[in-house]
Amino acid sequence: MGTQTTFLKNTWYVAAWSHEISAEALLARTITRVPVLLWRDRAGRVVALEDRCCHRAAPLSKGRREGDRIRCMYHGLLFDTDGRCVEIPSQDFIPPAARVRALPVVERFKWIWVWMGDPARADESLIPDTHYLDDPGWRGIPGYLHYDANYLLITDNLLDFSHLSYVHETTLGGSAKYATARPKVTRLGRSVRVERWLIDDAPAPYLQKLKTWPGNVDRWNIYDVVLPGVLLMDSGSAPTGTGAPQGHRVDAAEFFGCQAVTPETETTSHYFFQQCHGFALDDAVVTESLTASVHAGFLEDKDIILAQQRILELDPDTPMLAMRMDTALASFRAMMEKAIADERGAAPADATLGAATASARC
Amino acid sequence: MGTQTTFLKNTWYVAAWSHEISAEALLARTITRVPVLLWRDRAGRVVALEDRCCHRAAPLSKGRREGDRIRCMYHGLLFDTDGRCVEIPSQDFIPPAARVRALPVVERFKWIWVWMGDPARADESLIPDTHYLDDPGWRGIPGYLHYDANYLLITDNLLDFSHLSYVHETTLGGSAKYATARPKVTRLGRSVRVERWLIDDAPAPYLQKLKTWPGNVDRWNIYDVVLPGVLLMDSGSAPTGTGAPQGHRVDAAEFFGCQAVTPETETTSHYFFQQCHGFALDDAVVTESLTASVHAGFLEDKDIILAQQRILELDPDTPMLAMRMDTALASFRAMMEKAIADERGAAPADATLGAATASARC
Amino acid sequence: MGTQTTFLKNTWYVAAWSHEISAEALLARTITRVPVLLWRDRAGRVVALEDRCCHRAAPLSKGRREGDRIRCMYHGLLFDTDGRCVEIPSQDFIPPAARVRALPVVERFKWIWVWMGDPARADESLIPDTHYLDDPGWRGIPGYLHYDANYLLITDNLLDFSHLSYVHETTLGGSAKYATARPKVTRLGRSVRVERWLIDDAPAPYLQKLKTWPGNVDRWNIYDVVLPGVLLMDSGSAPTGTGAPQGHRVDAAEFFGCQAVTPETETTSHYFFQQCHGFALDDAVVTESLTASVHAGFLEDKDIILAQQRILELDPDTPMLAMRMDTALASFRAMMEKAIADERGAAPADATLGAATASARC
Repeated sequence: MGTQTTFLKNTWYVAAWSHEISAEALLARTITRVPVLLWRDRAGRVVALEDRCCHRAAPLSKGRREGDRIRCMYHGLLFDTDGRCVEIPSQDFIPPAARVRALPVVERFKWIWVWMGDPARADESLIPDTHYLDDPGWRGIPGYLHYDANYLLITDNLLDFSHLSYVHETTLGGSAKYATARPKVTRLGRSVRVERWLIDDAPAPYLQKLKTWPGNVDRWNIYDVVLPGVLLMDSGSAPTGTGAPQGHRVDAAEFFGCQAVTPETETTSHYFFQQCHGFALDDAVVTESLTASVHAGFLEDKDIILAQQRILELDPDTPMLAMRMDTALASFRAMMEKAIADERGAAPADATLGAATASARC
Repeated sequence: MGTQTTFLKNTWYVAAWSHEISAEALLARTITRVPVLLWRDRAGRVVALEDRCCHRAAPLSKGRREGDRIRCMYHGLLFDTDGRCVEIPSQDFIPPAARVRALPVVERFKWIWVWMGDPARADESLIPDTHYLDDPGWRGIPGYLHYDANYLLITDNLLDFSHLSYVHETTLGGSAKYATARPKVTRLGRSVRVERWLIDDAPAPYLQKLKTWPGNVDRWNIYDVVLPGVLLMDSGSAPTGTGAPQGHRVDAAEFFGCQAVTPETETTSHYFFQQCHGFALDDAVVTESLTASVHAGFLEDKDIILAQQRILELDPDTPMLAMRMDTALASFRAMMEKAIADERGAAPADATLGAATASARC
Repeated sequence: MGTQTTFLKNTWYVAAWSHEISAEALLARTITRVPVLLWRDRAGRVVALEDRCCHRAAPLSKGRREGDRIRCMYHGLLFDTDGRCVEIPSQDFIPPAARVRALPVVERFKWIWVWMGDPARADESLIPDTHYLDDPGWRGIPGYLHYDANYLLITDNLLDFSHLSYVHETTLGGSAKYATARPKVTRLGRSVRVERWLIDDAPAPYLQKLKTWPGNVDRWNIYDVVLPGVLLMDSGSAPTGTGAPQGHRVDAAEFFGCQAVTPETETTSHYFFQQCHGFALDDAVVTESLTASVHAGFLEDKDIILAQQRILELDPDTPMLAMRMDTALASFRAMMEKAIADERGAAPADATLGAATASARC
């Protein structure tokens, strides 16, 4: 678990925020243990190349841009945006094998997505819809955390919000009542949907700084976690009785969260996130308060997840006891195992896969 | 040696000083690679639980005390002092497997002892007598060092005091004469006894700060090292002729030392110690001077042991040449190997075991 | 490559600069994963002993000199300069096995050479001639860098100077023209010779601080890299037409460089170097400027090599595509593989060996 050695390859991973790749940048980022160089050509299109010269493995991110080409600054090989080597200083003949992998890359709504597997299978329609990141109807500020932990410990966290009552008791969560709410979990093709309602409770602590209501609220968190680790979440609170399922969300505080967990190595991860608010759009204080609360809350998550990683490293074979609250988590892990096994052309070894129900009311 | 991977489990280990576990504390300490949480119930009794929630392996030491229970602050499982889970937020049914290990624990004379193996075999009568730590007839101050070295390198050090002449030449030891004294080594059931007398020599450097005699002294170190690593030592100095075996210890400086080496992992260790003096009980300066000298001396040990660990890590198969001075050390290591092998139900692989004499005048 | 686990043993390695071993020094240095202690006897002769007591593996470098002997300051064993134990505190009998390895050692021209293999085969005539380090006809200042990288990545760097145009563009190198110059590579018995001329180009940036010419220069780098990693280099520049092969080197700036790469472990290395100038001998500013330029340039090498090491650690099986510029590098690596295989009495496993041409105009 802490030492998973195979990553899903035929999938889109979030590699960076758009703003990280300025016009002049040569951004080095390791994804699924593969070093990747991200940069923009003169037309502003993002290019993703393997960050490892085909000659002696020097990183191209220490190289030099020459127009729309990158020169390796160890021995001078020059590469085009498609990864082809177009110049070798000491010889005229350029062998066809002289190339680095060019990774399919898409810039969409402020996120840079790269496809780590077979380029022929890179289907842009598989990229989840995160338009909220860049929609004038929503406001939010980009966030990033680096984790010294396996990526699945982070997706585990996202798939079971019962932790809000404990990890985030005084920030994003609130009373223990939240943990008792039973979500509806639906297993879709490449994602798990979680729908969770908490009826008639006090607003979450962070929300009390953002909006005032005369009494209790109904709270909802309705979200998909899509392989390999993208969360898309409709959440909010509204006065009790108005927000409940099929309710009208009158006087509601509505949010949309986009989060992406990308494995760097087996024991380190990238975590990109933006929590957007769909109310008080012109109130910068709301945006700032929300951002600060979310960041503080995500540091609470990081603290417990790093602790979990340390415990697991003492004994990688630590058994874990499945609970009802793990339905979404177990579904997602089973889905991930199956996707990796399918990719490797083998049946999943884990017998627990069959036991993971496709949809469960828990 | 630097990479021993099996620890003795059916034994008492010193886990902490009593004062480390205050009324409110949740003390996390790893012992034989097992994370342990130590705390006190409201009656003041120490509780030792595996510091790893049975659900998702989060450490309970990041949890919250609720009366005499501990709540895991990841997903809210609540545990009783016996390790049983008594509440799971999202479900009413609590499976019998929902529990963490409760480790037998005994608080005695300021040390907290935990039993890392089968609880049914935890026999308190096996705990060595360290009443000196807390006896009004003796004075001393608790000490602790953390080591980045295998625990057996520390017990090796304790089992051969010929190092006093070299490692502690200007502190606890003294002249090279000490190293030439030949101890009597007796192998008992679960311990090795070392008896060492040095007749008619100058008092050790540290002792010259504590007490004045007109001439030379006789020095003795009579101690047991008990599995898995507890030293109990009667030592002292008296004017030459009075202190010698069967002597009357007239005008003597008598000490009793209690030390415990507890493996944290294969390459890290805990070291607990208190050197007590049985004379000048009301003179705080003596206690302070003794404590400072012992601490300085133990840092000298740590320096050479860490250096030894670094050398061994370059080549874990480094052969070592047995000397006569290694009799106690070799007996203890053989006893430890046999105890571990017995515990695993296998014969010890090491043929040197047979060669370790049960008692030797060396 | 980044994890080569076998080192050549029957060879001389540079272990230290003479000045590092002062009269009182006990210098600890690990070479090919073997801890070595270097010191001088009272006659000033350098002694090299395995830095690991035969008793319990404590390093002798934490010991004490007693005349021409070293006492281990753990348990007091005393060793002679030939590695023989001559005193064991607690016993009169000294077993013949009580000794540490004494390594053949030669001090020559400010470098200390040690032989890590069979002493019977230590032939001083195999030590490369580095008299320039200590010759009144040359001036230079000793340099040293420690590398967290495999030693062969450093020798790779030395064997292909096409990197001067890129890594050292503004320091030791200059225009891209340098990289296009095709060296003559000759494979000798235990070394590879590289001869590289660049005709009619601007002087290298660093050289412009040292000497002024009216126009362009011819530049040469003629060097041997000798197993296991010693570079001996005649280099310089002279006005175009005078310096060319068989030229007279009129008004030339001539240099001689001595460099030695010594593996510490599989992933760390020692790098000793001195660049000497053979002109302006009495101008200390020239010596200082040259030293500063070379040091700055070697830090540029270190930067790219450490980056290369990091990339290789992500995937030790990274394939590398051979180029014409790799002729010397490939020859040297094949020679090294064969030497190691010969030493182990086995045929080299790597089939590329046959493909490495003994001499090639590339």
